[in-house]
Amino acid sequence: MSVVARTLLGPGPTNPYPEATAALAQPLLGHLDPAFLALLDETCDRLRAVYRTDNRRTLPLSATGSAGMEAAFVNTVGPGDVVVVGVNGLFGVRMCDVAARCGAEVVRVDAIWGHPLDVDAVLSAHPAPKLIAAVHAETSTGIRNDVAALAAGKGDALFLADCVTSLAGIELAVDDWGIDLAYSGTQKCIGVAPGLSPFTINDRAWERRIERPQSWYLDLGMLGGYVGEAASSGGGRTYHHTAPTAMVASLHAGLGRVLEEGLDSVIERHAATGAALQDGLQAMGLELFAAQGHRLPELTTVRVPAGVDSLAVRGELLARYNIEIGAGAGESAATVWRIGLMGYNARPDIVTLILGALGEILRRS
Amino acid sequence: MSVVARTLLGPGPTNPYPEATAALAQPLLGHLDPAFLALLDETCDRLRAVYRTDNRRTLPLSATGSAGMEAAFVNTVGPGDVVVVGVNGLFGVRMCDVAARCGAEVVRVDAIWGHPLDVDAVLSAHPAPKLIAAVHAETSTGIRNDVAALAAGKGDALFLADCVTSLAGIELAVDDWGIDLAYSGTQKCIGVAPGLSPFTINDRAWERRIERPQSWYLDLGMLGGYVGEAASSGGGRTYHHTAPTAMVASLHAGLGRVLEEGLDSVIERHAATGAALQDGLQAMGLELFAAQGHRLPELTTVRVPAGVDSLAVRGELLARYNIEIGAGAGESAATVWRIGLMGYNARPDIVTLILGALGEILRRS
Repeated sequence: MSVVARTLLGPGPTNPYPEATAALAQPLLGHLDPAFLALLDETCDRLRAVYRTDNRRTLPLSATGSAGMEAAFVNTVGPGDVVVVGVNGLFGVRMCDVAARCGAEVVRVDAIWGHPLDVDAVLSAHPAPKLIAAVHAETSTGIRNDVAALAAGKGDALFLADCVTSLAGIELAVDDWGIDLAYSGTQKCIGVAPGLSPFTINDRAWERRIERPQSWYLDLGMLGGYVGEAASSGGGRTYHHTAPTAMVASLHAGLGRVLEEGLDSVIERHAATGAALQDGLQAMGLELFAAQGHRLPELTTVRVPAGVDSLAVRGELLARYNIEIGAGAGESAATVWRIGLMGYNARPDIVTLILGALGEILRRS
Repeated sequence: MSVVARTLLGPGPTNPYPEATAALAQPLLGHLDPAFLALLDETCDRLRAVYRTDNRRTLPLSATGSAGMEAAFVNTVGPGDVVVVGVNGLFGVRMCDVAARCGAEVVRVDAIWGHPLDVDAVLSAHPAPKLIAAVHAETSTGIRNDVAALAAGKGDALFLADCVTSLAGIELAVDDWGIDLAYSGTQKCIGVAPGLSPFTINDRAWERRIERPQSWYLDLGMLGGYVGEAASSGGGRTYHHTAPTAMVASLHAGLGRVLEEGLDSVIERHAATGAALQDGLQAMGLELFAAQGHRLPELTTVRVPAGVDSLAVRGELLARYNIEIGAGAGESAATVWRIGLMGYNARPDIVTLILGALGEILRRS
């Protein structure tokens, strides 16, 4: 079977940085090898740098971004706890589901998909929630929510931000903004294959955590013995589970590339390529889906032109150009395309490629 | 930083098959790419082959083996359900913890570590449990438990087998033996990096499952929409989470190697190399820890000789020979070594290498 090579411009995964791919194929290390533990510690340091946090409990969870979401809720929310969730896309909806499975009383505050959350509506939805949660970069709609304002107004509540598509893609400052917990995924703007969830939790949230969460696998107290706390205290390591060492080595390498370029520069690169794509799409006469002023540069949503078969265009992009873009999410499945320019793919040549390919197909159709 | 290459002879991970490593570094595919879905389907077929099952719900979970354990319990056990767990090692203990977090009433049946479970004691521990669970190959002690006999005597209960260290290493026949659920890990006898949990569940267990498990991430009903059921029904795929596509490609390749050699041949290879190692260790005057007649070939436990510093020997193996072996588990941490010959490392040259290196160190000490 011949190897298929794609340019991955969907909502993630993106093509990893070459350094991240190379690290996957390096000789495998055991999860208790001193050489691996040093690499893991440095990976946690690098995650602190991209999250802009000093949280000592900052670590890659051994599962994908959605498990990061689950870890955030199971470690902080128990039966009867009130959780306010801002919902303007698929991942806000998912948060409500996950919180409810922890027994939480979920207060859901909806906004129109493709528009940002109403900060005041979220903050005034309940007088004393234990947790307020929102998605920073809604991958399903291409919208940036103002999590800085939400965190600033949280009062006594904890504030949780889903940073799956925002980490290392747009401005994010966990400590300065007052975000208490955040999780991400490796396959977006960090530019690594999917499989890990970078996670951070501050002392404020830690002190209010559930002592024995319903999940053993995602129990941060037990994980701390292996990674987070030992890393800063210099103490011994307690085996919890077998860490996915190849993926951690790859994350280490991808973050190394990001920090070598410089986080500000990487974010600026995402901004520039996203703007170029969005300008180019509009110059072709296409209409963007996400509300102006709240658009993500790393994930662009664009309306499928009237009379054009969304699926056929995506199929031709894949078959003829080996380019993957995403369908819309939920109600927009057939009427919106999602085009990601993340990590390694946030480059001018990729903008030229996708605008050229899409233009050729639309002119023919 | 120079690359460290180890011979991994601990309790896992093992060095992956070269094909599995190469697949990690192939061009990444998106989780909804038709090319990836075909590869995923074939991976599930290959998992059915190594599990010796026709279960249509056979799939790689997107997390490590311990998450497989959690998936088994959260999908079948709820508050008040009686679960009988046979415990003769660390992973039996873990099962009790995970089951208790589901609200189960756990009936724990202990056997001495290093000895097999007493089948009758486990089967007679409760008149009507919902689930009986045991570890097939106890990685913490090197013991094989008779899960075939346990499954045969399960009565109306469901039977769950932990096959993390047994799958593709010793005889296992999910369907013929009547195992209702089983999970494994990729980093042992399958010979792939850690990161996925091969999972299988039959219709009998499926019909008694928890409709809405406390874990969203491990909800088999939702996962079925993406992988298991669609794969056999030919239906469309529903996005659940972003599958770790590089790891799945690697699993596909590792399983391909195993099945190309032939499962019987691979199991025979594990048996032969394990016997050679155990004979060699005893010929050196060392004493095996696991009870005779119940020893795993893929994971050998050997007592640290009196007067020998366990940690120092492991340190020298690592520093001078780049060989990793494991410490003992629990109370045996300082008095037992664990030596794995799994997957790609179940080879005569590896037996010669570890016996030679250990012999040199012990003669010098």
